[in-house]
Amino acid sequence: MSIVVLGTVALDTVKTPFGRREFILGGSASHFSMSARLFTHVDIVAVVGKDFPGKHIEFLRKKGINLDSLEVCGGDTFRWEGKYEGDLNTAHTLNTHLGVLATFRPQITEAQKKIKHLFLANVDPDIQGHLIESMRSPELIGMDSMNFWINTKRKSLLRTLRKVHIFVANDQEARSLTGETNLIKAARHLSSYGPKMIVIKKGEHGSMFFSKRFIFLLPAYPMEKVVDPTGAGDTFAGGFMGHLSTVRKINEKTIRRAVAYGTIAASFNVEGFGLDRTSRLTLKDIEKRLNFFKKHILL
Amino acid sequence: MSIVVLGTVALDTVKTPFGRREFILGGSASHFSMSARLFTHVDIVAVVGKDFPGKHIEFLRKKGINLDSLEVCGGDTFRWEGKYEGDLNTAHTLNTHLGVLATFRPQITEAQKKIKHLFLANVDPDIQGHLIESMRSPELIGMDSMNFWINTKRKSLLRTLRKVHIFVANDQEARSLTGETNLIKAARHLSSYGPKMIVIKKGEHGSMFFSKRFIFLLPAYPMEKVVDPTGAGDTFAGGFMGHLSTVRKINEKTIRRAVAYGTIAASFNVEGFGLDRTSRLTLKDIEKRLNFFKKHILL
Repeated sequence: MSIVVLGTVALDTVKTPFGRREFILGGSASHFSMSARLFTHVDIVAVVGKDFPGKHIEFLRKKGINLDSLEVCGGDTFRWEGKYEGDLNTAHTLNTHLGVLATFRPQITEAQKKIKHLFLANVDPDIQGHLIESMRSPELIGMDSMNFWINTKRKSLLRTLRKVHIFVANDQEARSLTGETNLIKAARHLSSYGPKMIVIKKGEHGSMFFSKRFIFLLPAYPMEKVVDPTGAGDTFAGGFMGHLSTVRKINEKTIRRAVAYGTIAASFNVEGFGLDRTSRLTLKDIEKRLNFFKKHILL
Repeated sequence: MSIVVLGTVALDTVKTPFGRREFILGGSASHFSMSARLFTHVDIVAVVGKDFPGKHIEFLRKKGINLDSLEVCGGDTFRWEGKYEGDLNTAHTLNTHLGVLATFRPQITEAQKKIKHLFLANVDPDIQGHLIESMRSPELIGMDSMNFWINTKRKSLLRTLRKVHIFVANDQEARSLTGETNLIKAARHLSSYGPKMIVIKKGEHGSMFFSKRFIFLLPAYPMEKVVDPTGAGDTFAGGFMGHLSTVRKINEKTIRRAVAYGTIAASFNVEGFGLDRTSRLTLKDIEKRLNFFKKHILL
């Protein structure tokens, strides 16, 4: 099984109460891949600039990630700079430099067009929509977005939403896209835009899966030390979509399991800066923590 | 089995997006009793003024609540006025009139002194401490508080905390009392003040039970319509303590069950103004919703 992920491969500069890291490998596609690779084969569709360090390419390749559609363009790699304070729940963006991302138009290989599973991490919704059109017969399409697109490209976002099966959003995005403060109402509302399945990520408060047939709630894994939450949502999506891309049938049981894998993968992500922790992660680590987690939530 | 609850019996004026109610029966002891009565016999220790409507006394008595220590004093009943907006997660206090609460010094009967279970709902921590001293040999003491006491009577609060077994706090109180933003750290810190068991209520995000031996996480029951959240925390505590006061042994299993009862009782509370919904509640309603809830959280 394989999954194609469209997203960003970025150079992040992050400051948290535990330190500062400059120009480390980040971006939604990188974080997604680092957990999805534990479950399935991953193809990244993204763009970087000429300045992108070769060691990062080497690193991703060594993790088994297919980079045939990681385009290298003249220009700068996308850079993000942010900081976290206090409870580390909110990222404060200090700087964004789009670089080559500004003119990115993804091209994928013939082999990739035949892949059945697709995840559209947070990029311009028109680009997300364009990639869907490139695929031959995708069977499961997941999508993420962010407030920037909700506020500036709402129409495009809604157009792309109509074509996807699963929408993954954080609580704030779900609220601002629907105008509903109650998260179940917001999920129901989102579902009316097209996607039959909605996953709402609530950070330290866990996540909610919503479909017309069932609702599933899972707390976050209890963490005493959060070093850097950057990419936790993408890591969650990687575990969630990664597992779903391996199952024969998507049903309540496999969805519950997928949410759990996403939750546990994200809990590892926040333990280190960037991909420090998830790059060393094994499926065995995930299973072990999941078994431990079950004791915390067993009614 | 019986439980004594020390708290307020109040006249609440509440405004929410669903309407406004004036001088309805409220207060921490009333809300606590309305759910605890489903599990155990409840004795209220509180004070009201001469203005307190006889119909409310009659109502509480008819619900099987012992009012031998509901003192009626010259003066006004404690009044609280508040409003909720948007997501109804935060109460905005518009007005507080202490009335007879300002000089309250609880007296309990000889029979009540022998009761083994005690819950100290949110009142002055010196009064809470005083009531503990009045009891002969309490076996299980739970306690709640609020930011007002954390900010104005921290020393008294810590003195009383040393004498209790279970501290029930909301996330904001846990953070402000300990200075820890991470809730597990906050719970661990709270536990170092005396109580072996800590329950942190997170409103729509559910709750966390913490002890050195185990952590238990439970999401809130998914509610699409919240009419009035006033007293949800006390209703939770009523279900939680109510169940614990009936069990032979306090262990992981009975604690998980107690948190679940508290969660479900609270979900009914928010469906109506004041005690509208919980006053009609039966244990059968609770069990039914709990069974339904299990499907939402079963991993």
